[in-house]
Amino acid sequence: MLSFDEILQRIEHEVSCLHFNCSPNSLYIPIEYILSLGGKRIRPALTLIACNIYKDTIDDAIAPALSLEVFHNFTLLHDDLMDQADKRRNKPTVHKIWNANTAILSGDAMVIASYKIIAGSKPEFLKELIDLFTTTALAICGGQQYDMEFESRLDVSEVEYLEMIRLKTAVLLACGLKMGAITGGASKNDAEHLYQYGLHIGLAFQLKDDLLDVFGDPDTFGKNIGGDILCNKKTFLLINALKKASPEQQKELHHWLTKKEFDPTEKIKTFRCIYNELGLKEMTESKIQEYYQKALTHFSSLHVPEEKLGVLKEVSTILLHREF
Amino acid sequence: MLSFDEILQRIEHEVSCLHFNCSPNSLYIPIEYILSLGGKRIRPALTLIACNIYKDTIDDAIAPALSLEVFHNFTLLHDDLMDQADKRRNKPTVHKIWNANTAILSGDAMVIASYKIIAGSKPEFLKELIDLFTTTALAICGGQQYDMEFESRLDVSEVEYLEMIRLKTAVLLACGLKMGAITGGASKNDAEHLYQYGLHIGLAFQLKDDLLDVFGDPDTFGKNIGGDILCNKKTFLLINALKKASPEQQKELHHWLTKKEFDPTEKIKTFRCIYNELGLKEMTESKIQEYYQKALTHFSSLHVPEEKLGVLKEVSTILLHREF
Repeated sequence: MLSFDEILQRIEHEVSCLHFNCSPNSLYIPIEYILSLGGKRIRPALTLIACNIYKDTIDDAIAPALSLEVFHNFTLLHDDLMDQADKRRNKPTVHKIWNANTAILSGDAMVIASYKIIAGSKPEFLKELIDLFTTTALAICGGQQYDMEFESRLDVSEVEYLEMIRLKTAVLLACGLKMGAITGGASKNDAEHLYQYGLHIGLAFQLKDDLLDVFGDPDTFGKNIGGDILCNKKTFLLINALKKASPEQQKELHHWLTKKEFDPTEKIKTFRCIYNELGLKEMTESKIQEYYQKALTHFSSLHVPEEKLGVLKEVSTILLHREF
Repeated sequence: MLSFDEILQRIEHEVSCLHFNCSPNSLYIPIEYILSLGGKRIRPALTLIACNIYKDTIDDAIAPALSLEVFHNFTLLHDDLMDQADKRRNKPTVHKIWNANTAILSGDAMVIASYKIIAGSKPEFLKELIDLFTTTALAICGGQQYDMEFESRLDVSEVEYLEMIRLKTAVLLACGLKMGAITGGASKNDAEHLYQYGLHIGLAFQLKDDLLDVFGDPDTFGKNIGGDILCNKKTFLLINALKKASPEQQKELHHWLTKKEFDPTEKIKTFRCIYNELGLKEMTESKIQEYYQKALTHFSSLHVPEEKLGVLKEVSTILLHREF
């Protein structure tokens, strides 16, 4: 069995071998740029890890793993354009270096390229992999659409929010694991448990992200602390703050939510203070635990020897206890 | 064998049966809107016609035909956004009715939906169809990239232009025919001849489009006459005008190409006049004939009884003698 580090090294190697030798060059340079920005490569890693649970050789999982990574980076590219984000992993975004049209078209080419890669999977897995990939990809578009619609709403419910992050974030982790299960030759049952495991880990992962935006350590968190607060993002914390706030806290929140000009540090401080008063850190942590426990029931339902699950357990711990 | 009208009716029926029953609705309404705008449905028709040459039942060709139509409409949606076009088929474009982000995201979902549809093809054709579809889709993105890059250039050569329209327009017609051949069970040889036939018809079709923009009848041509001239589009005519113009005509052309404010009727009149002086109508018509003749050699290389080719011949005639 491969270690987590060996898995990551294999992915970096495979990503660096991806060549989009098509013309015109100008269409593919932005693709190679965004793929070179790195990132945690968690999604393709999950595919290889899941495959490795069932098979010693992970070669059959490489194509679906890479297609997920390319697709994931496509979503970042187009989301950054839609959100008008200037930076991604501390580097300028594609539409900033080039322009909006290049970002649109290179992103389009990335979706197609991700299908090109997955179509290189072994014929016996092809149909199942493509169907899963497509269902996941459409779900992610749906999640992004909800996310954008929530921007202009103040009445987003917790249920709506959880559905949005399920679509936008969790299904891709779930899909990654299930693709590994499929190419590893897992039983239908195990494949489904791995999918559900990934789904719940993904939900917990996103809630942790919401939490770190407010209470994270600026030195270790990859993004600026308070970014969600500054753009009034309807996170798990804000939604629950709006629900649980006293009339006075309501007034304060709405004041800051509607204010066009403000001191960012002041706004973040105020929100963090209200979140503390409402016990939202604990509430979010307990929701994370709830999802983690659900994930674990699926984990323990897998029909594989305990010793095969070490790397998957390790990655899940990293995902949930991350400070990054 | 089905008549051309029966083929078109079948496509309209199948397109109207396409339901994107996914959530959120707001992501899929723009997709249904652009698909409802109609258009000639030439590309899916070519797939069904090609299949029908080899097989009485065209059911196996429906999925690839529809995927091409959805993909083609996706390119229109994103191209209109990139070109900031207000109208498509005399109706407001998606980004005008909704906004840029909706156009981006609904377009993304359309690419994925086109793969979803083609993945429903019979397993024995799946891999070949997907690979052909992907190669074609990437070529089209490349064509669009060249097209945009040509906007800011005055030195586009005829060779570069022909390569651009091959990628942006011709490969999709070629792909449509080849997909029909594959699902119809044609020989490799016939499939390739149909591909080449479509490619050359496609090139001729685009040159005819360039010609109609200048010399077409406003009452029958679907777009405004002179649209290409007004936006300095590097068409076959403009490229050759810049090459063949006398010093005086050069001066006149460059004057209008760089002028920011102008009377549109005046500009169109001037260009049409210079094109006439340079004999560009005849030159373009002769290039169209050249491609048409090449197409015919592939047509006559097909190993099928003459009577099977009636509908294909009919459509090609419509495509090349169109005034629309």
